[in-house]
Amino acid sequence: MGSFKIRTDLALEARESVEEGAEELRGVIVEEDYHEDSEVRITRVVIESKNSAKVLGKPIGTYLTLEAPAMILPDEDYHKEISGELAKQLRSVIPGIDKEPSVMVVGLGNRDVTADSLGPNVVDNLVITRHMVKEFGKAAYNQSHVPVISALIPGVMAKTGMESAEIIKGVVEKTKPDVVLVVDALAARSTKRLNRTIQITNAGIHPGSGVGNYRNSITKESLGVPVIAVGVPTVVDAATIVNDVFRKMFAGMESELREIQEEIQVSMGEIYNMYVTGKDVDYEIKQISHIICDAINEALELQSE
Amino acid sequence: MGSFKIRTDLALEARESVEEGAEELRGVIVEEDYHEDSEVRITRVVIESKNSAKVLGKPIGTYLTLEAPAMILPDEDYHKEISGELAKQLRSVIPGIDKEPSVMVVGLGNRDVTADSLGPNVVDNLVITRHMVKEFGKAAYNQSHVPVISALIPGVMAKTGMESAEIIKGVVEKTKPDVVLVVDALAARSTKRLNRTIQITNAGIHPGSGVGNYRNSITKESLGVPVIAVGVPTVVDAATIVNDVFRKMFAGMESELREIQEEIQVSMGEIYNMYVTGKDVDYEIKQISHIICDAINEALELQSE
Amino acid sequence: MGSFKIRTDLALEARESVEEGAEELRGVIVEEDYHEDSEVRITRVVIESKNSAKVLGKPIGTYLTLEAPAMILPDEDYHKEISGELAKQLRSVIPGIDKEPSVMVVGLGNRDVTADSLGPNVVDNLVITRHMVKEFGKAAYNQSHVPVISALIPGVMAKTGMESAEIIKGVVEKTKPDVVLVVDALAARSTKRLNRTIQITNAGIHPGSGVGNYRNSITKESLGVPVIAVGVPTVVDAATIVNDVFRKMFAGMESELREIQEEIQVSMGEIYNMYVTGKDVDYEIKQISHIICDAINEALELQSE
Amino acid sequence: MGSFKIRTDLALEARESVEEGAEELRGVIVEEDYHEDSEVRITRVVIESKNSAKVLGKPIGTYLTLEAPAMILPDEDYHKEISGELAKQLRSVIPGIDKEPSVMVVGLGNRDVTADSLGPNVVDNLVITRHMVKEFGKAAYNQSHVPVISALIPGVMAKTGMESAEIIKGVVEKTKPDVVLVVDALAARSTKRLNRTIQITNAGIHPGSGVGNYRNSITKESLGVPVIAVGVPTVVDAATIVNDVFRKMFAGMESELREIQEEIQVSMGEIYNMYVTGKDVDYEIKQISHIICDAINEALELQSE
Repeated sequence: MGSFKIRTDLALEARESVEEGAEELRGVIVEEDYHEDSEVRITRVVIESKNSAKVLGKPIGTYLTLEAPAMILPDEDYHKEISGELAKQLRSVIPGIDKEPSVMVVGLGNRDVTADSLGPNVVDNLVITRHMVKEFGKAAYNQSHVPVISALIPGVMAKTGMESAEIIKGVVEKTKPDVVLVVDALAARSTKRLNRTIQITNAGIHPGSGVGNYRNSITKESLGVPVIAVGVPTVVDAATIVNDVFRKMFAGMESELREIQEEIQVSMGEIYNMYVTGKDVDYEIKQISHIICDAINEALELQSE
Repeated sequence: MGSFKIRTDLALEARESVEEGAEELRGVIVEEDYHEDSEVRITRVVIESKNSAKVLGKPIGTYLTLEAPAMILPDEDYHKEISGELAKQLRSVIPGIDKEPSVMVVGLGNRDVTADSLGPNVVDNLVITRHMVKEFGKAAYNQSHVPVISALIPGVMAKTGMESAEIIKGVVEKTKPDVVLVVDALAARSTKRLNRTIQITNAGIHPGSGVGNYRNSITKESLGVPVIAVGVPTVVDAATIVNDVFRKMFAGMESELREIQEEIQVSMGEIYNMYVTGKDVDYEIKQISHIICDAINEALELQSE
Repeated sequence: MGSFKIRTDLALEARESVEEGAEELRGVIVEEDYHEDSEVRITRVVIESKNSAKVLGKPIGTYLTLEAPAMILPDEDYHKEISGELAKQLRSVIPGIDKEPSVMVVGLGNRDVTADSLGPNVVDNLVITRHMVKEFGKAAYNQSHVPVISALIPGVMAKTGMESAEIIKGVVEKTKPDVVLVVDALAARSTKRLNRTIQITNAGIHPGSGVGNYRNSITKESLGVPVIAVGVPTVVDAATIVNDVFRKMFAGMESELREIQEEIQVSMGEIYNMYVTGKDVDYEIKQISHIICDAINEALELQSE
Repeated sequence: MGSFKIRTDLALEARESVEEGAEELRGVIVEEDYHEDSEVRITRVVIESKNSAKVLGKPIGTYLTLEAPAMILPDEDYHKEISGELAKQLRSVIPGIDKEPSVMVVGLGNRDVTADSLGPNVVDNLVITRHMVKEFGKAAYNQSHVPVISALIPGVMAKTGMESAEIIKGVVEKTKPDVVLVVDALAARSTKRLNRTIQITNAGIHPGSGVGNYRNSITKESLGVPVIAVGVPTVVDAATIVNDVFRKMFAGMESELREIQEEIQVSMGEIYNMYVTGKDVDYEIKQISHIICDAINEALELQSE
């Protein structure tokens, strides 16, 4: 729809959006895997070239997406299945996972704003070991492998006066983890994906990516250690919703749509800065936080020989 | 827009919606008052006839709406001004306010769901006196008039297994307040009114009004004592948003709009049960809860002679 | 120790306290059962006579106490074991448990005061069915037996202006459950029992029992249906702590102790209204709330044939 | 009482404890100021020499204590009076306060443990400006002086795996504030001081001071910038309570007390790691957090010329 910028933090949706009515994009590998019994779909998008990164508005890297429509149902066994699958995917992207890397988990976002509280929620329930290992040594754990895990909730700029990136960088330099794992709430394009989709990427986090502002990135380049980002879409921009209804209605009538596009934008003025979310967002974010927390615990608990 | 049912709990918006492109509705009185310095607009809608009640989908009664765009700014003096105005309006609809009625304030809604937590938030901070007056008598207060105030947070049916109306009725029969004041979160049609508008009505609360289900009403008829309802719109239905963009775009083209109406409805399928809210809903609900709480405290603190 | 009144809500401790250095009390049956593998001790105290009730300061009834020192360790399997045992004990005291009684669970206490938040915490996580059964019938559940469960969090008098007993009575009369199950935080005498002990009794709840004030009792007599109370000691009175240290030091020197008793009381003036609790009370109350919640769910989920 | 170590974080109490029955301590200056109308007592203890620091178990520095018994009453005007007085005292110890120092406020403690949540609570409500000044310049504020304020809630070691000192040091090096202001919950000796006393010191924070462990200090020496610590006692060790009752009872009988001292210690075994607090600790900590927050805001809001 011409100049209207679809906002999504999911590489999966960025690709779908570009390929609507277009040929396949070069420099992007897409693989899909569907588990019939668990109804879990895993999609792997690899953005390989600078050009495809530019077209998709996402940096070069690997993006794993795990979708499970039943994710927020209150079924503990199913949660274990999903967190097990997520743990497997996490291990596949954490560099040197077999060499017991020390990991700092960072929970981004604002714990007092429901839709933004995913990161702090996940970190609140993690098993933390770094201080014990430092105090008593790995011997204390009676296991051949002991993960060294620390965690940080930096808070949001409106409440700290500092960029999250500044805080994280300061703490990384002081405590020297091998890997940083960042958890954050995302925006999606489709309401069907809200709180039912988890994205894992080794591309880090780039606020305002594409605008040439690299000061606040949380990436291997900015921190000096590999950064894995785990995210869940918790909101959709209200404007995106309206836009998508128009796209569906005018499917196959691109020229008409282009004509009235400016009018649409004007009529949407009022909903700028509003977002769409489900009625159960408070409950669902708690559920999915637990799943991610369990997955991180499982991914990092290295097996004894 | 034909059969699409605009959902709003505000009598003000119901009337606007009906009168769009129509002559004035009989049996409805509307008065407006705008305070220039405080930018507060007070609208008084009186639904007088059964017919106008049916057309508007709201029961017979008086509906006062207080709108203040700056309501959620962090300005304590302004808050006092608004809560003072609100207290004045409240006193105008509470029957027998000069005769020291005992009042039970009921906070409806779910405290764990941000957009639905207005009622419990307001009640949490009220000044409660009934137990003190019962124990020590009014003499203890050293004032000629002492308000007798109690409060109840009944919870939501999914968590109690009971209708709020059942719980309230049981407690009213046991403790016999003269008036019940119910506080609840509402749905609006316009995002501009979210967390900036307060409606007061003596019509009580009618869940699913118009559908012939009176079992769950919280009204003078069902409780046996006057019921005043205070509400704030905290969400807009996502479908309403989309609908309104279409209405604006097709203004003056009603017949075309009617033609494509079914298509629109189909294209909106995905957003059924989603709602639109501002990014600061958690903060704003706290702010407006304090304003309402202060207003109730002020309205009920009867003057000594 | 003479006139110093040991404060404890546990029948178990009341008996211990009376029997220190005394012969066995008549009209009280005590049975103990220790499970070696789970380290769970279950004590059954039956107060049979008016006289023994007066001596112990507890009404006639059966008091089951489940003690498990490891209760608050983060071990899910162990929690299941304890909640299973607790469910068994609960079923043994709920009248007519085999005839599918409808049950209202009441969470007493103040959710904003950690040590008093047990009741609300337990109720927050219960499975509630009454509204579903009323709407869709038991057939909807596809089970031959379906429990009808409702729940109420009345709040505390300082915030409602009403006695909890008034609120509960009003709602019981309106919704007519067969049994009321009340959950509340208690005071213990021994810090070793804090958050590691659960008491179940069919004697209901008697605030200020012994003082002739029956207005606020929550019992079969006051509500008209059987009342089962489940409680956990979360605090110890600070004065009790000091007193117990003196008792230990002066063991076998009762006459000396009696002489200095008044002096002790005076020296303790400052700690009146203070209480003693462990450093992890916030965490421990969450843990034990989950155990009780699971136990109630399990106890009420009647088996299909 | 011989070897029993009174635990208090208040220099005021450390001095009282030493001077009980002893001559005045050299190297310590004490000044007291009592405001009759506001009932606020301000005590200034200056520890000047290494020897007096050793005797008192507190590092060299200035310790201001503000005591106000009515501090937790719900009286907004009185709160303003106290926070105004506190602001004045704060300004007297912040180095270079007239030269617009940039200040980082650090809230120590665990927000999920009531008695330890003071620091996070204070920081939650501060006015933060650093990000605005960096983005728009001081001009944006339309004032000749604009304070540059940032804030950090590092969390506790059990949840982060890192010493608070490590985290703070990392962030200080990255964001270079001129002064660090640390807010923390303390332990007192007397229950009368709980939540009614505020201590300000320029000596920083020394966990386990005296034990030769300087790794985790938060001081000018460790951070490279001046550190001001603001603290409120929220708990008393249970053992301290018992001990104090004995001291009062055996006043003037020091030799007898010394004899039975070991017995006392043994009899107190059970209450090790328990603490004493008031029934309203949750409410009181919120009140005093607001007072401190207002005082910091006021102290840092530098006057325009």
